Amino acid sequence: MDEFELISRFFKNNGITRKDVDLGIGDDGAVVTVPENCQLVVTTDTLISGVHFFPDMDPRALGHRALAVNLSDLAAMGAEPAWISLALTLPEADIHWLEEFTAGMHEIAEYFNVQIIGGDTTKGPLTISVCAKGTVPNGKALKRSGAKNGDWIYVSGPLGDSGVAIEAQKGKHNLSPRQLEAVKKRFEYPSPRVAAGQVLRGLASSAIDISDGLIADLQHILDLSGVGAIIDVEKVPVSDVLKEALTQDEYLPYALAYGDDYELLFTVPEDNKGMLEINLRQYGVEAVCIGQIKGNAGEIELLKSEERFEINEKGYQHF
Amino acid sequence: MDEFELISRFFKNNGITRKDVDLGIGDDGAVVTVPENCQLVVTTDTLISGVHFFPDMDPRALGHRALAVNLSDLAAMGAEPAWISLALTLPEADIHWLEEFTAGMHEIAEYFNVQIIGGDTTKGPLTISVCAKGTVPNGKALKRSGAKNGDWIYVSGPLGDSGVAIEAQKGKHNLSPRQLEAVKKRFEYPSPRVAAGQVLRGLASSAIDISDGLIADLQHILDLSGVGAIIDVEKVPVSDVLKEALTQDEYLPYALAYGDDYELLFTVPEDNKGMLEINLRQYGVEAVCIGQIKGNAGEIELLKSEERFEINEKGYQHF
Repeated sequence: MDEFELISRFFKNNGITRKDVDLGIGDDGAVVTVPENCQLVVTTDTLISGVHFFPDMDPRALGHRALAVNLSDLAAMGAEPAWISLALTLPEADIHWLEEFTAGMHEIAEYFNVQIIGGDTTKGPLTISVCAKGTVPNGKALKRSGAKNGDWIYVSGPLGDSGVAIEAQKGKHNLSPRQLEAVKKRFEYPSPRVAAGQVLRGLASSAIDISDGLIADLQHILDLSGVGAIIDVEKVPVSDVLKEALTQDEYLPYALAYGDDYELLFTVPEDNKGMLEINLRQYGVEAVCIGQIKGNAGEIELLKSEERFEINEKGYQHF
Repeated sequence: MDEFELISRFFKNNGITRKDVDLGIGDDGAVVTVPENCQLVVTTDTLISGVHFFPDMDPRALGHRALAVNLSDLAAMGAEPAWISLALTLPEADIHWLEEFTAGMHEIAEYFNVQIIGGDTTKGPLTISVCAKGTVPNGKALKRSGAKNGDWIYVSGPLGDSGVAIEAQKGKHNLSPRQLEAVKKRFEYPSPRVAAGQVLRGLASSAIDISDGLIADLQHILDLSGVGAIIDVEKVPVSDVLKEALTQDEYLPYALAYGDDYELLFTVPEDNKGMLEINLRQYGVEAVCIGQIKGNAGEIELLKSEERFEINEKGYQHF
């Protein structure tokens, strides 16, 4: 199968068609229309076999995940996802693998009304690089830089499941098959908080998605906003499965520092707190307040039962 | 050096700053503004070490080339380049290599007034995937699908140098150092025909950039336009260096079928021929008419001294 047959079979005649796509796959470039009074939001995330996922990862889950991690970045900007460019590098054109991978990708694309408008397929070590585009009303994008003293710190859902899934598969923890299945699902099929991100527009003062770990990602907000934070580690939400399978000492490092969860971390001024909680609940998002912006700029103070809590893990590092 | 230091040192505080970039590198996504009455054009091209370039390729040239091949796609759409997302996968954070690579990339970005607005750096086999964004007035994008019977077929400049450069380095041809240097420069520092592409708007009936080879890329136009073509192979422009170093029998396959040249191939209705040639010449582009749209749909007839000419090469294939 040559490159053109591959694109034609798995991408060109699959997935949704958006009205704002004037020209999709099959030319030198795609042509799309950004709605009036909106800005374009662009994000890129690459997944590499053996670095970001196990080489034998279920291809359907991989297709889902490759798109989900990018949609999560758009969510953190408060953007509405629209278009995807896919740079797919494959060691060989394995039909079964491609069928499953593209099915997983088209499923989540359809769910979020996103169209794959182009990309590049090349031969080499398995690498999936997605450039996702979305739109946001002029000036309404959520940034990392807006947190102010006194703002409340929230996360959009439970943390730590993905990390436990990875380490359990490496043999570090002994989970029951049901428990392992539950945490693996969080890693394989993360739910980008797209609706939540749009609800945050105009209410949250800053936002980021938790890909590198709660502490590392909070640090990004603090550095760009020039503020400090205090976090009550016992308020950080974790799933029932984690509480059941591990002790608190075991699961806290995952929830605080492992990453790969793709929940949103955001700050909210006191005045917007009530409105925000009501609006998020309408979308089924149970956001949890875990602390407050205060203290020395750039510093995170972790508390547990009102005492200082220390953690060694620092979050995900590529290099 | 961790990922954040790398981005900060080589990307964040380098390169040009465009006024239409509200938020660049350093958040979950970039935020940019598409001009009124314009559409967004998006293209993606990936370069992989050992597949698309020699592993020891000069990193400065590689930085140039990675951007150039994408700007060439925007040129083929008639778009004005604006923003770049870069997915860079590196086996290690080699400071010297990164300095040269980013210098090459920033040089061409500055020349074309393009800003790197974000991306992702990951650890793995050397892979450079660029997603380039540009803008085009509403409805004015050049497509592959508009060629009509009777239109004239043009290329924007000499073909075959890049192919000869690659094969000479593999030992297939014996070029003088000066000759090798000249053709290597075409491979390493291709000039995307950005101004030419914009001149073609409203005058050309179809366009594509020659990345896979003249015949393969012409075939794309024919397939999407539902027309045929006749090409006089002796009219296909080649550089003086190629004519000097190789016989016609040797260089014609490169000019017709090797690709990697990044000139534009386009079709022009009879009525626009004169205007187009004048306008292109003002931008220093010596476009050459090499044939005409006619004959059976999907078929390319090659002529040499008015006799049928056959060629075995079919153009670049990834899989």
